Amino acid sequence: MPTSEQIRATIGQYVECFSTADKDGWIQLFSADARVEDPVGEDAHVGADAIAAFWDVSRTLADAITLVPTGPVRVAGVEAAFPMKAVTSIGDDKLVVDIIDVMTFDDEARITSNRAFWDPAEIRPYEG
Amino acid sequence: MPTSEQIRATIGQYVECFSTADKDGWIQLFSADARVEDPVGEDAHVGADAIAAFWDVSRTLADAITLVPTGPVRVAGVEAAFPMKAVTSIGDDKLVVDIIDVMTFDDEARITSNRAFWDPAEIRPYEG
Repeated sequence: MPTSEQIRATIGQYVECFSTADKDGWIQLFSADARVEDPVGEDAHVGADAIAAFWDVSRTLADAITLVPTGPVRVAGVEAAFPMKAVTSIGDDKLVVDIIDVMTFDDEARITSNRAFWDPAEIRPYEG
Repeated sequence: MPTSEQIRATIGQYVECFSTADKDGWIQLFSADARVEDPVGEDAHVGADAIAAFWDVSRTLADAITLVPTGPVRVAGVEAAFPMKAVTSIGDDKLVVDIIDVMTFDDEARITSNRAFWDPAEIRPYEG
């Protein structure tokens, strides 16, 4: 069972790699058979190849995506949830949406599941 | 399928009823067969009677418990997640812990499942 500190470290790397467009570093945070549902309610991306393809699609339109944590990580057992804003830059425009990610972890604190709670209807211009 | 507005209304009532110790109002927000896991990783309380008993136990030690939302509700499909602090008053002492609740809803926007992400080790004195 991963420790709370290991889970927090993985989440810290997740935010860092995502925001610096470090795709390889980001993919390595997941287990081989991980499941990503983003947003919750859509079909899941299962396995490293599908998750890598999902990364590529999400970057097609965006010049940059920055995750900004808006509160502490809540760890409970081998799961965790944390709140953030995602700021997407497209040319000179910036958009923002509020997200809560809910993750499960394996014994090495790799992500086995991520469920991202957000609503496309809530995307709005980012005021800075 | 409940609307985003209906889900937000239920969560608003949930926070209000919990914080004003309105047990009956709070219980009515759940479906008859609802499942509460609080914190995540512990045994679930299933059904209205078990959830009512869980309420009673949580109030045994506390004179008051106030939920303070710390960010917007994220609705995704028929589910939602939201961040808060829970402030517990015991005599002259106040304790606080950070929580994220993750809920699912039925067609009438009643809560069918609540999973509360928090860590008992993170409870600390409330500084106001």
